[in-house]
Amino acid sequence: MELKGKTPSESKTIMTEMVLPNDTNHLHNLRGGKILHWMDIATAIAASKHAGAIVVTVSVDQVSFVNPIKLGDVVTIIAKVTRSFNTSIETHVEVWAENIPTQNKYKCNEAYYSFVALDSNGKPRKTATVIPESDEEIEQYEKALKRRQLRLIIAGRMKPEEADELKSLFTVNQKK
Amino acid sequence: MELKGKTPSESKTIMTEMVLPNDTNHLHNLRGGKILHWMDIATAIAASKHAGAIVVTVSVDQVSFVNPIKLGDVVTIIAKVTRSFNTSIETHVEVWAENIPTQNKYKCNEAYYSFVALDSNGKPRKTATVIPESDEEIEQYEKALKRRQLRLIIAGRMKPEEADELKSLFTVNQKK
Amino acid sequence: MELKGKTPSESKTIMTEMVLPNDTNHLHNLRGGKILHWMDIATAIAASKHAGAIVVTVSVDQVSFVNPIKLGDVVTIIAKVTRSFNTSIETHVEVWAENIPTQNKYKCNEAYYSFVALDSNGKPRKTATVIPESDEEIEQYEKALKRRQLRLIIAGRMKPEEADELKSLFTVNQKK
Amino acid sequence: MELKGKTPSESKTIMTEMVLPNDTNHLHNLRGGKILHWMDIATAIAASKHAGAIVVTVSVDQVSFVNPIKLGDVVTIIAKVTRSFNTSIETHVEVWAENIPTQNKYKCNEAYYSFVALDSNGKPRKTATVIPESDEEIEQYEKALKRRQLRLIIAGRMKPEEADELKSLFTVNQKK
Amino acid sequence: MELKGKTPSESKTIMTEMVLPNDTNHLHNLRGGKILHWMDIATAIAASKHAGAIVVTVSVDQVSFVNPIKLGDVVTIIAKVTRSFNTSIETHVEVWAENIPTQNKYKCNEAYYSFVALDSNGKPRKTATVIPESDEEIEQYEKALKRRQLRLIIAGRMKPEEADELKSLFTVNQKK
Amino acid sequence: MELKGKTPSESKTIMTEMVLPNDTNHLHNLRGGKILHWMDIATAIAASKHAGAIVVTVSVDQVSFVNPIKLGDVVTIIAKVTRSFNTSIETHVEVWAENIPTQNKYKCNEAYYSFVALDSNGKPRKTATVIPESDEEIEQYEKALKRRQLRLIIAGRMKPEEADELKSLFTVNQKK
Repeated sequence: MELKGKTPSESKTIMTEMVLPNDTNHLHNLRGGKILHWMDIATAIAASKHAGAIVVTVSVDQVSFVNPIKLGDVVTIIAKVTRSFNTSIETHVEVWAENIPTQNKYKCNEAYYSFVALDSNGKPRKTATVIPESDEEIEQYEKALKRRQLRLIIAGRMKPEEADELKSLFTVNQKK
Repeated sequence: MELKGKTPSESKTIMTEMVLPNDTNHLHNLRGGKILHWMDIATAIAASKHAGAIVVTVSVDQVSFVNPIKLGDVVTIIAKVTRSFNTSIETHVEVWAENIPTQNKYKCNEAYYSFVALDSNGKPRKTATVIPESDEEIEQYEKALKRRQLRLIIAGRMKPEEADELKSLFTVNQKK
Repeated sequence: MELKGKTPSESKTIMTEMVLPNDTNHLHNLRGGKILHWMDIATAIAASKHAGAIVVTVSVDQVSFVNPIKLGDVVTIIAKVTRSFNTSIETHVEVWAENIPTQNKYKCNEAYYSFVALDSNGKPRKTATVIPESDEEIEQYEKALKRRQLRLIIAGRMKPEEADELKSLFTVNQKK
Repeated sequence: MELKGKTPSESKTIMTEMVLPNDTNHLHNLRGGKILHWMDIATAIAASKHAGAIVVTVSVDQVSFVNPIKLGDVVTIIAKVTRSFNTSIETHVEVWAENIPTQNKYKCNEAYYSFVALDSNGKPRKTATVIPESDEEIEQYEKALKRRQLRLIIAGRMKPEEADELKSLFTVNQKK
Repeated sequence: MELKGKTPSESKTIMTEMVLPNDTNHLHNLRGGKILHWMDIATAIAASKHAGAIVVTVSVDQVSFVNPIKLGDVVTIIAKVTRSFNTSIETHVEVWAENIPTQNKYKCNEAYYSFVALDSNGKPRKTATVIPESDEEIEQYEKALKRRQLRLIIAGRMKPEEADELKSLFTVNQKK
Repeated sequence: MELKGKTPSESKTIMTEMVLPNDTNHLHNLRGGKILHWMDIATAIAASKHAGAIVVTVSVDQVSFVNPIKLGDVVTIIAKVTRSFNTSIETHVEVWAENIPTQNKYKCNEAYYSFVALDSNGKPRKTATVIPESDEEIEQYEKALKRRQLRLIIAGRMKPEEADELKSLFTVNQKK
């Protein structure tokens, strides 16, 4: 049976959370580990909606924490599926925070999480393809191959000289 | 004032946790996000002991989840400082799980977390250098430069052609 | 100073949560109290965004729980401001649940929560008026007076014969 | 089989809790949603004891929050069954708070929660009748019919002109 | 200033809790450590009410766990002050569990917790004496001296031959 | 089948935790009940590793809290098996805390927890004997008999005059 493709919007997931005392360090900043935890849940829900199945996390790409998030701030996490590869699904997630009394809203970080969809016996199963719509979605879809090669090289499962897509990623990064 | 160097053993941190129902998914596997959260706390304590100061997470390198951890298993997380760069500290963390009745013990994943040490005003402060002792510690110390260049390139803060250390990383990976 | 009015969309808040074991009863249904808790946080964030200030819950209208939500289901909570009265803000919140593998999505319940916006000394402060846009928002805005009178009567702070708006609410309900 | 009636005292449930940081807002007041959660658990236990069975929440009447509860205060929640209707059970719950060092004790709010008792197949089952003893219990028992009609009208399941008990509720409220 | 004595009833504290999945082990029994945690909070509230002040735990006497408490059971914890010694307060706590559908109610364990009352500078302060009323309260009051001597001997702060009260405790135990 | 003896080192368990706001009282000290909870988990893991089986807590000996642990401090809990008696296992646990910026490290308390190992039907099963190695382990092994007799006397299950080991315990304590 051919699986019908789905757009990223169909599985887009928005989470809103408040930063509570137990999730902060001595400086009243949200811990990096807690952010990673929330990102994992939001992206897992997005991947699960895309696959119509249970999913498990297989990897998280490098995450940088640029702006600290303060106690009491409202955190908005936006997760979308970017591309699927047979049984695996790549998702993108953005984290925004807002201090409501001062109306200061800022982007905190973003990342790519990868999942595998499982059937009812816990075995990997094929997932629907992704049909990107917006320009941003198309760009994320196209660059997904490069990110995948980098992941395989870092995990020691692909040789750098085989990574034909990766060179162009480096070239693209270079232009930023 | 010159800061005295410290060995990785001086800040080594061991955490033992049990996998509880709220941290698992429908397949009774520990969520990836919860593992990342525990790894962040263990590595933050190790970096904090090394620095003798409060630290904040600045980045997490790519993490792959190889073996799922089951409900009820005992998880052991071992964090050590690998190298420091002026105000930043790189740590390595390994996650092991054990099913006690079957005595099945297995490695789940590992990662590198980076931190910045802060003074009492919340400003970055210099940290002690790392003095590696064992062969594994020396290897991790030496390769830290390569990992750092890769981090900067992925974050778009270094051009690939400037990353002289990175080529040898690729070469090393290739041999695996 | 005149406060500029705001539309409900400007403060609309979406929360996505998963039903975890600790939040369920023996039948693996999400507890009513936990749903009320999530609804309170989502509506408080919406009211807070509208007011640009901290808010405190002053009342919750009657809530009926029609469809039970099962363990593992994904819960989506959508909160919007409906109308403000000087220092108080009424919000509407809807709760939807979805079982992803079966793609069964159903509405669970809805409610009205009221808040008071506070200034930095913890005293009630005036809030922006609400400018409803869609037909549904206009209807919720108009009926807010009736709900307010019913609230005051039930709390024993208004006499039924003074509740001129309430009669029409009863008339409206009757037609359903 | 005829079910033996039970007094409210037989199922009276007292919960004592402390207000912890994670349950408070920026003003160090306990969140309304957390109070509703505790009230739900206490009333569910009372209804469950009365029914000798598992119960599920079907509705909560309007709740007003009069006095804020502060961080560190001790909260006492007292739940009692007021009346049963075939398979449903109405309970009353009162929330008191106390600041121990100042010995300031104050009532915070009260509410009526309704439950349905379930048999081992998850189907509604008949519950014991309630035998009120004290004057307060008798008054709560008698007014239960009026509250029930108001609940049905608000939920759109009864026409106002059929609510013969409701008029007297309004009359009673008017005298307060 | 002479502190007025208080009866144990004035500070009696009742906690009702439900056993949730995260607090149980693989056999679905409530963990001993969680029971000790609840007992600590209930007795701390009782001691705090007696003292009209903040208290800190100084010791817990030996606790035996006789009957396991199962997932879903309702736990009732009853704490009362037994006697005070200058700045310290001894409390007694009983733990009961009930399986509601089967109406099986059983005592799980009991213990003595000791606290010190603190003034607003965190220094120990004198507390009111205890005026026992019931026969059980009088017996607990009288035997408090023996328990105190045993505590001091075990902690290595009293020599056994000085423990004149202890011999009679042993004699009393012997009769059981 | 004869069970092979195991050394305490084989089951030694180290837990590292941070003191978070929700676990502290008004003075920002970690609650005694939370420490007892962590000690229970660490010792249960150690006993479980020794037994290669699930264990349940049967008793905790008297615990004294000498030094308060402050918010933000890092807590290290070290648990080791001391001796086994047929189906029961005694463990020793030490709690240390460290304030990292001031490098102040201090011992907080210690205790003995006893467990019973269970087979897959939940029935007590024999456990391996303990082979103490270090001087401290040998001393703890030898004194285990005395602690056991004291436990049985306090629980009213042994007559004091039968406790031949206990006299020497008192003698030993006396020397401290």
